[in-house]
Amino acid sequence: MAPLRWGICTGGEISHDFVASLQGHSDNHPIVAIATRSLERAQKFATKFKIPTAYGSYEELARDPNVDIVYIGAINTEHPRLSKLFLTNKKNVLCEKPLALTLHETQDVLKTAKESNVFFMEAVWTRFFPVSAKIRELVSSGKLGDVKSMLLNFGLDLPDRERTVKREMGGGALYDMGIYMVQMTTMVFGEGPTSSHTHGFLNENGVDEMYTTVMKFPNKAMATLACTYKADYPNEVVIVGTKGRLRIPDHFWAPTDLIWSSPNGEPIETFNFPTPESSAEYSLGPLWSGMLYEADAVKQAIQEGKKEHALVSWKETELLATLMEKARRDLGIVWVHEGQSPVVVLA
Amino acid sequence: MAPLRWGICTGGEISHDFVASLQGHSDNHPIVAIATRSLERAQKFATKFKIPTAYGSYEELARDPNVDIVYIGAINTEHPRLSKLFLTNKKNVLCEKPLALTLHETQDVLKTAKESNVFFMEAVWTRFFPVSAKIRELVSSGKLGDVKSMLLNFGLDLPDRERTVKREMGGGALYDMGIYMVQMTTMVFGEGPTSSHTHGFLNENGVDEMYTTVMKFPNKAMATLACTYKADYPNEVVIVGTKGRLRIPDHFWAPTDLIWSSPNGEPIETFNFPTPESSAEYSLGPLWSGMLYEADAVKQAIQEGKKEHALVSWKETELLATLMEKARRDLGIVWVHEGQSPVVVLA
Repeated sequence: MAPLRWGICTGGEISHDFVASLQGHSDNHPIVAIATRSLERAQKFATKFKIPTAYGSYEELARDPNVDIVYIGAINTEHPRLSKLFLTNKKNVLCEKPLALTLHETQDVLKTAKESNVFFMEAVWTRFFPVSAKIRELVSSGKLGDVKSMLLNFGLDLPDRERTVKREMGGGALYDMGIYMVQMTTMVFGEGPTSSHTHGFLNENGVDEMYTTVMKFPNKAMATLACTYKADYPNEVVIVGTKGRLRIPDHFWAPTDLIWSSPNGEPIETFNFPTPESSAEYSLGPLWSGMLYEADAVKQAIQEGKKEHALVSWKETELLATLMEKARRDLGIVWVHEGQSPVVVLA
Repeated sequence: MAPLRWGICTGGEISHDFVASLQGHSDNHPIVAIATRSLERAQKFATKFKIPTAYGSYEELARDPNVDIVYIGAINTEHPRLSKLFLTNKKNVLCEKPLALTLHETQDVLKTAKESNVFFMEAVWTRFFPVSAKIRELVSSGKLGDVKSMLLNFGLDLPDRERTVKREMGGGALYDMGIYMVQMTTMVFGEGPTSSHTHGFLNENGVDEMYTTVMKFPNKAMATLACTYKADYPNEVVIVGTKGRLRIPDHFWAPTDLIWSSPNGEPIETFNFPTPESSAEYSLGPLWSGMLYEADAVKQAIQEGKKEHALVSWKETELLATLMEKARRDLGIVWVHEGQSPVVVLA
């Protein structure tokens, strides 16, 4: 079967690590082109990773006939525009999360994906880790009994970098970090909550620096999600069932460990799935070698002729966007670019 | 100095363990009388613990001139009436938490305590453990930096015993368990939150079975409190400061361990203060030997001529009641006995 030829859109930290992960472990993922807003930067990136083609514009990448799929590692605010650019040029697309800062834009991109009839996925990479598969297996097997509650926290004392604190760059804890927790709840419960309420603080730029979301799920189950970019939390997820409990210790967003215990905490089984070893250097840390998991999954889905991946379907992306939108409205975040465009309803 | 002579009001599990704790460790706490609604039960309790006097009515205990202080271990709904009975008879009172099911009743009891000019304290025993003293020391020393967040969870899969599930008995997770978390937040922050929002589920009797409270504190700090009587949580408290973190592992309500770490979780110092050893048998478990700590504190305060204890002042009890009231109103709990009595404002 023909290899899937990757084009990379933007040359920031996350694109760097995506390429490092793909090249560091496997010859299965040829990377054939890189585009950034500056040809010089693109060439530098291309040289470092031995990528044959460098572009100083995204439009050139979109027209490159040698590219099968584009990975979008741009900042949050650019995701919808770039997704649409590549989709309308019939490229398959893997776009970093969050796909957009509003539900409206998310629906607009998904509509474009549908019309373009190519593969599209929001890069919710956490779901492709072996630990996530084990969580789904244990939950669906009934070994935990009924899941009654999820307790999640994600706090990092991040430097005041612009993309985290600035409203015009789509910053804030919710859209930078919160989506990791939200996707964990919908993965475990297999559906969205019946209600969601968020309380927190905005920073002086008008995006959230700390918040907690409380979700109610069917069968009187709940999830509690605490998040901040101003302090270090334990960064754990606890899934509480009537017959057992799961704990995903620090770094649940790129999970390598899972502890299954009885309801009162006696260990039953411990799982450890280290991320693929590689000699590559990562900007964001060695955990990012785990991006290979989602790349493998995307490749397989495309080769099977699919337009979306079952683990992060378009419907799921819309659900995540709906929940993020509810949380940001509760917090009072109003994006700079929000216009009066009508909401697009996905057919 | 004359010993403080205790009278015990009701002979349930918690009274049993209170007496066991006092007698098991010390001759400093003579217990001179026990009263229950049935003389036979009182006599049985008296025989077991070698208590000289047994009464079949609370009024007799209130009039006993040999009793200096009454410990009230009755069910929640009875606390205000019994507190007032003993206070108006000029007995010092230590009443189990929660003092009342409404703010109005709490204020009414505190007003009676003030008029009676005797010692009164709500039995928030957690605050008297050495671990709690260590928490206060570390927070006030500035060693944690600014406390930005507290993450608390308290979940026990309790059998459907009447006093837990029944509205007419003052049941529900909030009033049975939640107060332990609420008092931990006000102890650490040294003040009440600027806002508090609670979301959860009521059971078929109309009291809460699961809920989460989100509190905002000054200086953009928050607390997240998750609680249920339907499932076992890790039952931990994490206090997140800008310079360090504290973790109180399972059983934070009767804390014997404390882990002080750097912001990212590297251990700095671990503290262990086991509860006093004793050969006594406890209905609720050996941790309850820690009730001695509050009894010692109460005794000392009374011997110093105080009417309230600095660690659980009347103002603090009123604050806790205010926060519990806000949470139950958010949840939609309406007590069976709630009348239209005007709110008493404490001078």
